[in-house]
Amino acid sequence: MEEINNIEVVPCTESNYLKPFRLLYNQNGTKKSWDFMRTHDSVSVLIFNTTSHCFVLVKQFRPAVYMCEWEKAKTKTSQGAVKTEEGEASESQEGQSAAAEDTSSQWPPASAGVTYELCAGLVDKPDLSLEEIARQEVLEECGYDVPASKLKRITSYRSGVGVTGAKQTMFYAEVSDDNCVSAGGGEPREGELIEVVKVPLHEAMTFAYDERIPKTMGVIFSFIWFHNNMSPKYKISTNV
Amino acid sequence: MEEINNIEVVPCTESNYLKPFRLLYNQNGTKKSWDFMRTHDSVSVLIFNTTSHCFVLVKQFRPAVYMCEWEKAKTKTSQGAVKTEEGEASESQEGQSAAAEDTSSQWPPASAGVTYELCAGLVDKPDLSLEEIARQEVLEECGYDVPASKLKRITSYRSGVGVTGAKQTMFYAEVSDDNCVSAGGGEPREGELIEVVKVPLHEAMTFAYDERIPKTMGVIFSFIWFHNNMSPKYKISTNV
Repeated sequence: MEEINNIEVVPCTESNYLKPFRLLYNQNGTKKSWDFMRTHDSVSVLIFNTTSHCFVLVKQFRPAVYMCEWEKAKTKTSQGAVKTEEGEASESQEGQSAAAEDTSSQWPPASAGVTYELCAGLVDKPDLSLEEIARQEVLEECGYDVPASKLKRITSYRSGVGVTGAKQTMFYAEVSDDNCVSAGGGEPREGELIEVVKVPLHEAMTFAYDERIPKTMGVIFSFIWFHNNMSPKYKISTNV
Repeated sequence: MEEINNIEVVPCTESNYLKPFRLLYNQNGTKKSWDFMRTHDSVSVLIFNTTSHCFVLVKQFRPAVYMCEWEKAKTKTSQGAVKTEEGEASESQEGQSAAAEDTSSQWPPASAGVTYELCAGLVDKPDLSLEEIARQEVLEECGYDVPASKLKRITSYRSGVGVTGAKQTMFYAEVSDDNCVSAGGGEPREGELIEVVKVPLHEAMTFAYDERIPKTMGVIFSFIWFHNNMSPKYKISTNV
């Protein structure tokens, strides 16, 4: 499906997306330092289509996931000849150059970087409520037009506590085929290439725990939340 | 509890922990670029103490979470006078300097950065199995000595798909007071200041969905997994 080519890894000395900072502080009298990144909070939405009794997920090529797989394949090939990052504590610039040169190694297929995820987006519009931002993501990514008032808040939690620490709020949206106004697929002007995929309700639990299907924890958690909370309303056959 | 002071934010031009790279590629004929960070895979462990019928979690001060809260407090105080990062696409260096000067703002209490998490650790020892790494984390962070063979794999998933994309594998470990060999608390030489906390089984679901208690999705998901899968063995009173 996805075709990825002309791949090149280069050092990233300045980024509009990754902004590293360092926090210096004393914790209970101990002097500490921690590198972190600024990010936005986010929303994610479990979408259930009541017409087809399917969950609506998004599937996309994730460069960061792809590079993890590339790294693993490379390490396996070189059979331990690759130095670990930890051993190069004072050589991070050299480490970066090495990576930039390594692009001649064999690249894994694009599918190695494709993941299944909940519809989601950043909270980067200060004037909009979380529900309104979630509503826009459901429309842009998945093509369903549902009023913000129909979004049910599931819960919130911290993501990436080591590096970003942002808050993610998860919603549940019931949609029907009547709400479907476009094919979705994200904002092309933002470079989004998102595929909308449906997971039938009766396959949901097998999907959730099948480790061969790359996915986020949000998919697994929300499917189980649905199983536990919506089962009086919809039947779901499973042995979670 | 935690005392945090002498706080200072400084730009982070080179880090041993955050290593940004840029991937240049063609996706289905469209030229794209994505900034990402290399990280290690990780393991997390839901620990259940069968003597006290409690879950064993870790609680720690997370600078990244703290800075998110500081940012929010600052934005609220300035009532919209703060520019958003997105508006400064070509001014990231200036943005960093500004942040470094902003430290005179009032800092929130340390508790704003404290989160409840599963016992967890990075997969950074190539010679060890995931189970063995998980076993070491349970011992170091929580003080329980359990054989790796007693760890039950729950599932795996991708975390931080936008930035890191690493794989996290979640385990379940049953421990008893007899396995407790130390107070835990992490590796002081690695600067870890970890508090071991117990959540009684009968309070677990209220804890999981109480948004006032800052926690990771792993805590919520694993408590529900336990509820669904261990209920024949242990009673858990809840309305999940």
